[in-house]
Amino acid sequence: MQTASTVRLGAVPVAPGHGALQPLSLDEVRITGGFWSTRQTVNRDHTIPHAMSWIERAGWAGNFDAAVAGTLPAERQGREFSDSEIYKLLEALAWDLAVTPDPDRADRYDALVRRVAAAQEDDGYLNTEFGRPGQAPRYSDLEWGHELYCYGHLFQAAVARIRTGHHDQLVEVALAAAEHVCATFGPDGLQAFCGHPEIEMALVELGRATGRRHFVDQAALFLDRRGHHVLEDIEWGREYFQDDVPFRDAGSLRGHAVRALYLAGGAVDLADENGDPALREAALRQLRHAVAHRTYLTGGMGSQHQDEGFGTDDALPADRAYSETCAGIASVMLNWRLLLATGSAEHADLMERTLYNVVATGPALDGEAFFYANTLHRRSTGEVPPSDTLVARAESSVRAPWFAVSCCPTNIARTMASLAGYLATRDADGIQLHQYAGCEIRTTLTDGRAVALDVSTDYPRQGAVGVVVVGESVGPWSITFRVPSWAAGATLTHGGRTRTVDPGTVTVTDDFGPGDRIELVLPVLPRLTWPHPRFDAVRGCVAVERGPMVLCLESTDVPGADLAEVTLDPTVPLVDRVPVPAQDPRPWVAAEGSLSPSESAGWGYRDRPWASDAATPVELPLVPYCQWGNRGPSTMRVWIPVAEGRSAVADS
Amino acid sequence: MQTASTVRLGAVPVAPGHGALQPLSLDEVRITGGFWSTRQTVNRDHTIPHAMSWIERAGWAGNFDAAVAGTLPAERQGREFSDSEIYKLLEALAWDLAVTPDPDRADRYDALVRRVAAAQEDDGYLNTEFGRPGQAPRYSDLEWGHELYCYGHLFQAAVARIRTGHHDQLVEVALAAAEHVCATFGPDGLQAFCGHPEIEMALVELGRATGRRHFVDQAALFLDRRGHHVLEDIEWGREYFQDDVPFRDAGSLRGHAVRALYLAGGAVDLADENGDPALREAALRQLRHAVAHRTYLTGGMGSQHQDEGFGTDDALPADRAYSETCAGIASVMLNWRLLLATGSAEHADLMERTLYNVVATGPALDGEAFFYANTLHRRSTGEVPPSDTLVARAESSVRAPWFAVSCCPTNIARTMASLAGYLATRDADGIQLHQYAGCEIRTTLTDGRAVALDVSTDYPRQGAVGVVVVGESVGPWSITFRVPSWAAGATLTHGGRTRTVDPGTVTVTDDFGPGDRIELVLPVLPRLTWPHPRFDAVRGCVAVERGPMVLCLESTDVPGADLAEVTLDPTVPLVDRVPVPAQDPRPWVAAEGSLSPSESAGWGYRDRPWASDAATPVELPLVPYCQWGNRGPSTMRVWIPVAEGRSAVADS
Repeated sequence: MQTASTVRLGAVPVAPGHGALQPLSLDEVRITGGFWSTRQTVNRDHTIPHAMSWIERAGWAGNFDAAVAGTLPAERQGREFSDSEIYKLLEALAWDLAVTPDPDRADRYDALVRRVAAAQEDDGYLNTEFGRPGQAPRYSDLEWGHELYCYGHLFQAAVARIRTGHHDQLVEVALAAAEHVCATFGPDGLQAFCGHPEIEMALVELGRATGRRHFVDQAALFLDRRGHHVLEDIEWGREYFQDDVPFRDAGSLRGHAVRALYLAGGAVDLADENGDPALREAALRQLRHAVAHRTYLTGGMGSQHQDEGFGTDDALPADRAYSETCAGIASVMLNWRLLLATGSAEHADLMERTLYNVVATGPALDGEAFFYANTLHRRSTGEVPPSDTLVARAESSVRAPWFAVSCCPTNIARTMASLAGYLATRDADGIQLHQYAGCEIRTTLTDGRAVALDVSTDYPRQGAVGVVVVGESVGPWSITFRVPSWAAGATLTHGGRTRTVDPGTVTVTDDFGPGDRIELVLPVLPRLTWPHPRFDAVRGCVAVERGPMVLCLESTDVPGADLAEVTLDPTVPLVDRVPVPAQDPRPWVAAEGSLSPSESAGWGYRDRPWASDAATPVELPLVPYCQWGNRGPSTMRVWIPVAEGRSAVADS
Repeated sequence: MQTASTVRLGAVPVAPGHGALQPLSLDEVRITGGFWSTRQTVNRDHTIPHAMSWIERAGWAGNFDAAVAGTLPAERQGREFSDSEIYKLLEALAWDLAVTPDPDRADRYDALVRRVAAAQEDDGYLNTEFGRPGQAPRYSDLEWGHELYCYGHLFQAAVARIRTGHHDQLVEVALAAAEHVCATFGPDGLQAFCGHPEIEMALVELGRATGRRHFVDQAALFLDRRGHHVLEDIEWGREYFQDDVPFRDAGSLRGHAVRALYLAGGAVDLADENGDPALREAALRQLRHAVAHRTYLTGGMGSQHQDEGFGTDDALPADRAYSETCAGIASVMLNWRLLLATGSAEHADLMERTLYNVVATGPALDGEAFFYANTLHRRSTGEVPPSDTLVARAESSVRAPWFAVSCCPTNIARTMASLAGYLATRDADGIQLHQYAGCEIRTTLTDGRAVALDVSTDYPRQGAVGVVVVGESVGPWSITFRVPSWAAGATLTHGGRTRTVDPGTVTVTDDFGPGDRIELVLPVLPRLTWPHPRFDAVRGCVAVERGPMVLCLESTDVPGADLAEVTLDPTVPLVDRVPVPAQDPRPWVAAEGSLSPSESAGWGYRDRPWASDAATPVELPLVPYCQWGNRGPSTMRVWIPVAEGRSAVADS
């Protein structure tokens, strides 16, 4: 017999009941400056309005009106999962309105919710693609239909709304839909699940937000049914749906990357709710394998275009990196859950890498165009997508404003709007800082003591992170800093004493008083990075990183050069030249290299090594990978071949 | 006003009206021994019966019966293009029956033709997927429907039948269908074409075989309509269908590889029929670009699984090589047409490479299982496909007996059955030997002189190719030998004199008498091959070739080793050890290398090169790539990393 769940509120992206660390809400952490502040402002002022406009232009919001008007399926627009884009946008609005109240935007939110609500059927069913005359019957295509996936995003929007203090029409719609799902797919119902996981996390979270324990139970049913060859076999194999083996038995994240990561997130949530650590261990095992063998330097996951999937171990082609923006977001969601559960800095490290190099790469700097896939090597510039037309898919070197499978823009929108919720945590002893951004933290420790601190930093442009305690003395408590794995030589200054701190975490415990200051300095100098020999696709190449940022060479910065002919000399020290001010788009780092054209015959294979005819020295200016493709069509590479005979490490 | 075409017969795979060289028919060339003789026998005794069995088990032949019974679409089996498999099999049977008459097999051919013919509609339309109540209307889905593609294979089967001396029911069916196509898609008809080219070659050939000039004209209409954005745009772009730019303007083979190659074949045929050399030049330009930038060492084409496509320049991942067997066959068809037109040995070279390393790789040695894609690097063994079940797609390291998109088996069958037609040509001066196999050639030169010669060779196991003239003296004539591009140091012995001959072609002219003997010796010793630096995916690796054969390292031959840890030392000479007898499956060559495990952390990227903990010397036995995967599940690689600091060339 299941017990009732405790209702857990607070404006947090996820609210587990147990775990090493507790999340802080958007009321408790406010981003005040720096990289993520800029991104959040762009999200609010550009990405969200852009998405609100495009769901109308593309007709995806209109599908709900058409449902009411009885003009479906004739007038239906968009893919089978387009309803979910409206829900993700509603979630983004919910978080955004909590961070920055705006009556006009709140009215537009309400208006959109009314249109969604009007399309809901009496028994709670809500989907514009199925169930009407001329449409396929409800739940007749669980492999591809995305009905439960769409509910998942509806539920997450409702959770955001509940946790930001509202019980509005959207919440009523979500609850009715969730009850319908439980009635339809419960223990005595359809013994099936959705081809695209998402509803698992969402049902657990809706259960947490409402105390309706049966939502959690339904999520557990969905998870446990999976992996027993329930869905149809397909050309790409059942691992595409994670229906090949039960979740608890799988050795790696596999198949479609977003699906695999969302499912693992749901498993961690269920592990928490059901006191089932084996489930969390399975998620951790799958993630660790994927991190070792199926993850790009950027943190990006998914190396196969064919099935948007992980592919096999060690197959990580730079030029065909899929590394979908949404998979980056899903990885952040999974790692945040594991960080809360375990407190292990490895998850915060991977979140940071993924946030800066995948999530921040997806959207253009202006917030109004997007990459769907995030390649690490682009050999041709591609056509510039039209700015006013929906394109088949974003595949140029220039981001596209909207595309047929536009799952990324609204996913970006909800993530940026709730980003403050991912920066820090608390426990009874103190505050843990996981991601560094200018912010204000005002909270109570889990033992009830009120604490307050301000973080000021220009990270990752600069390595100094200053923390000033604002609140009054409450007796000894702790401030814990994450020291990223790359940050050997970091220093911490407190009470006039500076010491070197090792990667991992470092904790300062004190009876802090107002004005007490701690400074962490992370060595964000540029460094060369070598890939493991198993990663065949980038053998003989190096990448350049600087702090948490992966850098890249963009053709814009080496005019006239063919990036296929560039080599980098790793024996020459890299030069750090981060521009001031922050908005300056110029390169951050310079490397030394050569332009080394090789004789090119018709046939590209011969019986001796290919030598360069004449190598010309060239400076290689490098930009943060997340900024590439913002200056017009270009070619680009993250991994740069090492000059012949120069495989040694730079002395510096 | 178009003139009537000349009827051109003779049992040849393609019969152009002009060109530098004339094909020899299956009556004129008979394969008598060696590599291809074995393959042809396996094709006759195993692959053809296997395919005849599977088209019944899979229900694809039954679709024609169901059409007659009126039980379509309910009882339809297989993909939308399954009709074409029956036609390709009929073509294979037509060639095979000409090479090796077999009354029982001839009866089975007739029976299958009767079932096909019964399904043809009164106006000539013939397709089991479209046009009936409950099916999509005829020609309503030219992007994906494959209706004209299916006709193309029907016509090619009829051409084979006509050219091998029959005017049977299949020919009547094909002619009625071709007239229907011309009536429907003619100058005043549907201004469209098929998403999958094939009918262009087939219509030209059917025109050549029947003298019906309007078939050729219809092919020209199809070609000229293409490239003007007639078909719907799709996620992969219009280049998938070659509908992005007109054929004459395109710079490279592009999009779906089989489609691009078939289309180019049709263009060369039209160039010949219409005296339109610009069309042939366009095909040549596209091919040469693809050969330089979009072709694997094996000759394989197509590097993207997503769209079975060429992808972009220089993106040639070994592990994700698509290199579809059918694309190899299509490349052979295109290069044969260009060889006949131009006489240039580059096409015979590429044909040889493709025949040994793609076409011969597709089928298992027993002829009853097939690769669809031909990867150059396999990291995991994969599951063994069931021997008695149709699988979704052949994607294991073990070939599958039959699969949903089983286009390769019947394509292999028709190619192997007609292979003798691709070995040699004639002109007024003599005979040109392009591919080396034990064979007998009995023909007349284009000036009418009868000549005869026998070729005996164990090529490519051994490098000696002996030619003995059999016929009586007819005055001076020539025998031309192709010297492959890799064969520097080849020698030719004639009249007691041995001389070195350069790659390209070498011609011996003499007033040959019976018993006159010429011996070409090709240096089939193993050699190392380096990839151009633009091919990022195989940087720092070498391959081993031996004569025309690409070799590979298969895990079967290095028990216990992880192929990810193998390096090859290019400074140690390769050891040739081709086993005797020919059927011995043991490796042909040994290289020296090391097992060099590298420390493996969770995260595969670090700030210094990865060194091996301990390198252990290991012998690397190498098998012909076309033989791999015949000894149970295995891993495999063609490109082997070069040992650190050993990038020099071997002295030998």
